[in-house]
Amino acid sequence: MALIVQKFGGTSVADTQRIRNVANRALKTHAEGNDVVIILSAMAGVTDHLIGLANEAAEIPNRRELDVLLATGEQTTAALLAMMLKDMGADAQSLLGHQAEVVTDCEYGNARILEIGTDRIKRLLAKRNIVVVAGFQGVDIKGNITTLGRGGSDTSAVAIAAALNADICEIYTDVDGIYTADPNICPRARKIKEISYDEMLNMASLGAKVLQIRSVGVAKKYNIPVHVRSSFSQEEGTMVVQEDSVTEQLVVSGVTHDLDQARITLKKVPDQPGIAAKIFSPIAESGILVDMIIQNTRATGQTDLTFTVPKADYKRAMRTQEQIAEQIGAEEVFGDPDIAKVSVIGVGMKNHSGVASLMFNALARENINIIMISTSEIRISCIIEEKYTELAVRVLHTAFGLDKED
Amino acid sequence: MALIVQKFGGTSVADTQRIRNVANRALKTHAEGNDVVIILSAMAGVTDHLIGLANEAAEIPNRRELDVLLATGEQTTAALLAMMLKDMGADAQSLLGHQAEVVTDCEYGNARILEIGTDRIKRLLAKRNIVVVAGFQGVDIKGNITTLGRGGSDTSAVAIAAALNADICEIYTDVDGIYTADPNICPRARKIKEISYDEMLNMASLGAKVLQIRSVGVAKKYNIPVHVRSSFSQEEGTMVVQEDSVTEQLVVSGVTHDLDQARITLKKVPDQPGIAAKIFSPIAESGILVDMIIQNTRATGQTDLTFTVPKADYKRAMRTQEQIAEQIGAEEVFGDPDIAKVSVIGVGMKNHSGVASLMFNALARENINIIMISTSEIRISCIIEEKYTELAVRVLHTAFGLDKED
Repeated sequence: MALIVQKFGGTSVADTQRIRNVANRALKTHAEGNDVVIILSAMAGVTDHLIGLANEAAEIPNRRELDVLLATGEQTTAALLAMMLKDMGADAQSLLGHQAEVVTDCEYGNARILEIGTDRIKRLLAKRNIVVVAGFQGVDIKGNITTLGRGGSDTSAVAIAAALNADICEIYTDVDGIYTADPNICPRARKIKEISYDEMLNMASLGAKVLQIRSVGVAKKYNIPVHVRSSFSQEEGTMVVQEDSVTEQLVVSGVTHDLDQARITLKKVPDQPGIAAKIFSPIAESGILVDMIIQNTRATGQTDLTFTVPKADYKRAMRTQEQIAEQIGAEEVFGDPDIAKVSVIGVGMKNHSGVASLMFNALARENINIIMISTSEIRISCIIEEKYTELAVRVLHTAFGLDKED
Repeated sequence: MALIVQKFGGTSVADTQRIRNVANRALKTHAEGNDVVIILSAMAGVTDHLIGLANEAAEIPNRRELDVLLATGEQTTAALLAMMLKDMGADAQSLLGHQAEVVTDCEYGNARILEIGTDRIKRLLAKRNIVVVAGFQGVDIKGNITTLGRGGSDTSAVAIAAALNADICEIYTDVDGIYTADPNICPRARKIKEISYDEMLNMASLGAKVLQIRSVGVAKKYNIPVHVRSSFSQEEGTMVVQEDSVTEQLVVSGVTHDLDQARITLKKVPDQPGIAAKIFSPIAESGILVDMIIQNTRATGQTDLTFTVPKADYKRAMRTQEQIAEQIGAEEVFGDPDIAKVSVIGVGMKNHSGVASLMFNALARENINIIMISTSEIRISCIIEEKYTELAVRVLHTAFGLDKED
């Protein structure tokens, strides 16, 4: 007897046959005596199709209207699942964002949830209904439809689980959990049984791409256990929980890599107040996301400044910096799009010295040159040459004792 | 300077290119100084596609959830048109049924509009916005999405025009107006310039299929002039107006035909109270629509009873009646699916005797046998053998002076 929120992603609802699997799983959970709330994404490919239509309709699709358009995707799957559940004999009802009272700010396309009115969901649950909520969408205080950004259904699910004080939020996806590294490049990668919210936050932002990063933040804030698992099997996946609930705590939980990095360096920048602002303002204005920033002090009143941007924005960012370099009197701008970021993550490293040196030594043994380093409390990231990515991930995976047992 | 409601049907918004035509027309009307409210249908084919999905999802799709699903069609076109108008420099905003406060009863799939709150539309119009409303959909008092039935966007348009006290409601469709007969079988058919609401009510129900019949009733009640015209030309179409506004009033305005008729006769039914109820209750319960019913009294305490049903329901209705006939002691049941209904319609016939005899004589001259007759105040309908349909329409068209001048 628990209150269980289950979220199914686009590949899990790609057609009516797959939606039937979702229905069967929901019915089973319900038949076991649990209260069940289902959050759905749009069918795989539908959101992209709608964005294509919008781009036919307008050069710059209005954001309010784009949200009205995109919201139809989740509305479709929610209605289909609800009618399927009813047809199979269950009591069920679909709720759209505004009906479930998922109230957000007015930031169309990337809205944040302000509050969730749970009365209607609770009334339906009390009558033993399976409640099907369209994910990804909300409503602002004026009644306009908003959406929560790519992957927003994850955040819908966790936020609704939090508002309902659910026992667990299950995220069904096309992978069967979180791995210690990408199994495609690291054959010895293991599925992680339990991981802390903080580790997951660092995993997600570094490219694990299983959960929308914001949803993990919400789960952490309200302490909602999140179970990431496959909708195509019955196997257990990965539990994302509070740090002190993780039973077997390793120093390092995983090794991630991110190929979508390009590096830009400004050499001999005058070391004066306001220079960094001059460099990064035009980058921010053109909507380019900067990831790592590193500044080394030189003795001479000059400094070298290096930062990374997504590969797709590299040329645009370079052009901006060439102009800036001239204005601020930097000696030279140069860059490199052929880099990658490898990171080791683990809450355990807070209490263990030597993680950094173990990492640097492991890379050094393979003659992998480290171009940049950045660290957080539970993460160490190194920028290396792109061609060494796979090798680096494998040797770090082994060095930190993550390899699966044979 | 007028308040103009324009409704565009599915073929008029079938793709983004056609939606652009709609945008151009709306912008032109707006630039002439008018306030403009646009009501849209779903893209042609989309509603059928969604119904197909629903039938995959459930044997009997739940009606509430089907409405949630179907409402996405109009939501899509409304969002696309609004973003297109904004992209073209106009102020515009889409409103869904619940946002436009189109409040209906809870009869999912065939809801009736109870009231329309016009505040939001009026506020937007006051700011010179082109308001784009998703047709076909409404909301019940509990906040559930409802739809108004096939062709319901016509009713949305006329009801919103009435609520706003609009000067005119323009219905843009893929035909250029109402004709005196179907031009496909009557080459001499003329486009009607003006027609009364009552004539249109009779035309629509008899198969003119240009306007949802309910929308004409609403237009009549609130005296909203309706202009039925083509979205693919600038030509004037047909004005549907109050009877006393029609300038050139003919005795008969049009000749219609309906091929979707099948006849069932119960012979020698005992002439007792309650018999008719016994015959029609099972028909009604199986959702079969009965059109004409004719009962002839015999001298012997027995009666013959004949009625018509849609061709698709003929076999099912026959099976029902064969059981009933046995129960009530009727002598025989026989039927004929190869029949058609031809009708002449005109408010002028109220003041002219001789319309019926002119009709029967015209058919008799061609040796067309009349199987059944039914009349209303402004309509005379005859059931004939299906093979004579085209001939009958043509000779009636000529007999009542409707042929176009060469």
